[in-house]
Amino acid sequence: MRSDRQDLRRREFLTAIGRAVGSSAMLRTMAAMGIGTSLASCGSSSAASGTAPNPAAPPPPPRMQSPRPGDWPPNAGIGKSVVILGSGIAGMTTALEMTRLGYACTILEATARAGGRNRTIRGGDGVNETDSSQVCMFDFDNDLYFNPGPARIPHHHEFLLGYCREFGVALETFTNDNRAALLHSTNSFGGQPQIARRVIADTRGNIARLLALAVNQNALDQELSAADKTNILNLLRGFGDLSGSFDYTGTSRAGFPGQEDTGSRQRGELVNPLQLQELLSESFWQNRQDFAHGLDQQSTMLQPVGGMDRIGIAFEAQVVQDIIYEAEVTNIQNIASGVQINYDRIGNPMSLNADYCICTIPATVLRSIANNFAASHQDEIAGFAYTSAGKIAFQSRRFWEQEHNIYGGISWTTQNITQIWYPNHGFGRDNGVIVGSYLFGGAAGNNFANQAPQTRIDTTVTQANVLHPEFSAEAIHGISVAWPKVPFQLGAWGASDPSFLLTPDGNIFFAGEHLSILRGWQEGAILSAYHAIDLVVARDTP
Amino acid sequence: MRSDRQDLRRREFLTAIGRAVGSSAMLRTMAAMGIGTSLASCGSSSAASGTAPNPAAPPPPPRMQSPRPGDWPPNAGIGKSVVILGSGIAGMTTALEMTRLGYACTILEATARAGGRNRTIRGGDGVNETDSSQVCMFDFDNDLYFNPGPARIPHHHEFLLGYCREFGVALETFTNDNRAALLHSTNSFGGQPQIARRVIADTRGNIARLLALAVNQNALDQELSAADKTNILNLLRGFGDLSGSFDYTGTSRAGFPGQEDTGSRQRGELVNPLQLQELLSESFWQNRQDFAHGLDQQSTMLQPVGGMDRIGIAFEAQVVQDIIYEAEVTNIQNIASGVQINYDRIGNPMSLNADYCICTIPATVLRSIANNFAASHQDEIAGFAYTSAGKIAFQSRRFWEQEHNIYGGISWTTQNITQIWYPNHGFGRDNGVIVGSYLFGGAAGNNFANQAPQTRIDTTVTQANVLHPEFSAEAIHGISVAWPKVPFQLGAWGASDPSFLLTPDGNIFFAGEHLSILRGWQEGAILSAYHAIDLVVARDTP
Repeated sequence: MRSDRQDLRRREFLTAIGRAVGSSAMLRTMAAMGIGTSLASCGSSSAASGTAPNPAAPPPPPRMQSPRPGDWPPNAGIGKSVVILGSGIAGMTTALEMTRLGYACTILEATARAGGRNRTIRGGDGVNETDSSQVCMFDFDNDLYFNPGPARIPHHHEFLLGYCREFGVALETFTNDNRAALLHSTNSFGGQPQIARRVIADTRGNIARLLALAVNQNALDQELSAADKTNILNLLRGFGDLSGSFDYTGTSRAGFPGQEDTGSRQRGELVNPLQLQELLSESFWQNRQDFAHGLDQQSTMLQPVGGMDRIGIAFEAQVVQDIIYEAEVTNIQNIASGVQINYDRIGNPMSLNADYCICTIPATVLRSIANNFAASHQDEIAGFAYTSAGKIAFQSRRFWEQEHNIYGGISWTTQNITQIWYPNHGFGRDNGVIVGSYLFGGAAGNNFANQAPQTRIDTTVTQANVLHPEFSAEAIHGISVAWPKVPFQLGAWGASDPSFLLTPDGNIFFAGEHLSILRGWQEGAILSAYHAIDLVVARDTP
Repeated sequence: MRSDRQDLRRREFLTAIGRAVGSSAMLRTMAAMGIGTSLASCGSSSAASGTAPNPAAPPPPPRMQSPRPGDWPPNAGIGKSVVILGSGIAGMTTALEMTRLGYACTILEATARAGGRNRTIRGGDGVNETDSSQVCMFDFDNDLYFNPGPARIPHHHEFLLGYCREFGVALETFTNDNRAALLHSTNSFGGQPQIARRVIADTRGNIARLLALAVNQNALDQELSAADKTNILNLLRGFGDLSGSFDYTGTSRAGFPGQEDTGSRQRGELVNPLQLQELLSESFWQNRQDFAHGLDQQSTMLQPVGGMDRIGIAFEAQVVQDIIYEAEVTNIQNIASGVQINYDRIGNPMSLNADYCICTIPATVLRSIANNFAASHQDEIAGFAYTSAGKIAFQSRRFWEQEHNIYGGISWTTQNITQIWYPNHGFGRDNGVIVGSYLFGGAAGNNFANQAPQTRIDTTVTQANVLHPEFSAEAIHGISVAWPKVPFQLGAWGASDPSFLLTPDGNIFFAGEHLSILRGWQEGAILSAYHAIDLVVARDTP
């Protein structure tokens, strides 16, 4: 229902903007909207959809390509003022780049800290949700931290990485695909967790064996020449580690018996291949393998040394002079001279006027703030969907390293907890912070958000124990963040089509990860900022 | 010729040891020999062979499993003395563990430093080969170092990692499989380097497409039930990112146009799939993809923070009181009371007697040292093959990060340079150390060793420039190590069957990476030490 309505609305909107401002503006809007492309989304999706455009189509015209610093004339903003709502990555990028163009920028931030969902929790930190409060009890230690929001950076998110380089934020490798991690389904293999290396190696072995069989039976002669057949058989032998007769009877790639735990004395032996029928029985087994092949989850993934908030703090240092903290926006108005923003500053009603407003407030929060937006914008904001996601972390002895040779990476389960993340830093130390659950979407995400913090801990320990029986005895100081319950966020990341809100309402422009081709990613927040800047600069450029 | 001779000799030897000391010792010897298993080797091999044993065979008897600390009775060595030849990882492990058992240990080290091939080169360090000398001109900086020998640690090399934990050696992630790295063949794609993500995604897409075609044509009905067919088609759709009709027309996993370089504005577009015929035309394209699936190259790989020699130095700190440096062994003798070792200490002839000798000197060096070994041992040592390997590193602006989004990992080429390694640490800094070539085996390895250092630099720059045209302008201070030319090493890693030399000659026992199931790996050096200790302890245990 909703998507039909949105498609219609998008078409109408594009026609309208085409009439109003010409095709150039329309094309640049389409670009930032990611029209004609499959929209990526954050950490959760297993793979790109099959709905991508025909790759043989001609390249899009240059103006469809997304804007970036360097596109805009220097001094474009001299004499102009901008008020930016929210000091997350989108808001701070906007302030940074617009200041460089000569705009006078002010950021209104509802809380006492900058960064938004870019956040790291350490011992002593508080976590306040709309109906609960927690204090993190981790030991004080540089390695003991928890990134409840963004926690990894793809190597091609080059704007975010460029800012890290510029600001001197040290980075290290983050692992998605650890072959020693576990895959667990309650429905397969008697509910026994399987080590990832076996699942991956045996899937490749079986695919290669079956295709070799078909090739050798001449079943694909309409596709393959005699030379092709010889070559593909050689390829398949390597791909699946097949025998000389193209059979698959196991491979050292799957590890040796007992390799789930340290202490096996059977190095050099092979394990029996997992049954193909069982690997086929649930899409879980393939989906979890495909995850680290997605463009935004491929190696090399990165993380800031010391916690994701190193990035937020570095941005903040660039624009701190422009941030008004604890300034909760109460009314957003287009006025004849520009915009007027009312806000509450620690109990005091305040007001600020500017030529433009760039609003990065999440739609979940924005829909409750008084405004004089057009009805169509209000309607879109009211209906904008967000993903319900949360994480819970524990301090623990590093049993996963000491007893299972797991250094970083992710285990997956069909249970609600969905994922267990092992720390990608501090290897070999006694203690670490393990993410006992990262869950998102659907009933699981909502259930988690609606649980009291202690219930989240209890549920996670019970389920994580199925993968790691050490968990209940070793994992302590559980602390959770459910983004739908976090004030001024009220959601994890945008899940609706961003197209409509990429267009301004009068002098008010919208930005944030939810309004980008990379929803749920910090790079998306940056791209959305560039888009908003581009539209403002176009107004100020003859 | 040689392997037939060795097989015969091995059988004879096992029969002899079985007669002499009983089947328990024979079985434990077979275990450390890796008999019945496929021998792994170091960093170079693309995948395990298909010659592994039948995985359905029953597990081997417990005594075939490799020994380790904890197997030996406490105080087994009290009152006994051991002289250890060589202070590499094998020698230092031997000294550490035998000291713990009560043995009085002395290590004779030919050079002024411990660690052997475990080595890190920094600004100001000298590199002396048998016919050349170099000085490393890198800037003084913790991130600017070069590991010419071992440079990565598989996550399941648990003895080495256990020592790192015990000694407090900090570890970080090392990347083998970076999808932004390049694959380059002079014979394919017009000699244009291809980004790894495309090669991998398009190979998977084509394999999935072809197998789906065969399944849909009912060509595999003898193997697959109707339910299997439905399930495998679903699996293949995910595996290859196929369309709804099981066609493969490209995938976002392969990246967007222009992604080889930073600055592409085409995020969200697809690239055209590479032609299957071209991917099939050379085994190079599949072999390089398979590399990171090998058991000893799978993620998570690790490296010590600050250089591989952090491990050698940590070992040295444990046993430094037992090391005699600059003690070049000149004669190794079995005598009635044990062993007598003659050595040259900075020009002075010296002699040392002990109950046992553990000799970790590489066979390439040992064959030139006077001894009274049995003829069969002398013959084996004389003929023991080593791999010819070398590396060359350069200091450079991090153009690979700044202009290509390459953070760590390896590019491969069919040119002699074989591999380019990008640093896995110091991401985002201005300069880094790039390994311009890591080559091994065959003519390439020998040619490299026989080149003068400047010729190695010139050759590497020319070839690396084909992958990275920035190389010639940016890469400076080239410094190389060719292991066949390094005094007291004279080779990179063992390449012969270790079986024979795993048996002692009188009171002289042999160890070193070349005498293990993990040749070329530090973990292999440790396993070989455990094997030698096990044999000595068996002599001293009633």
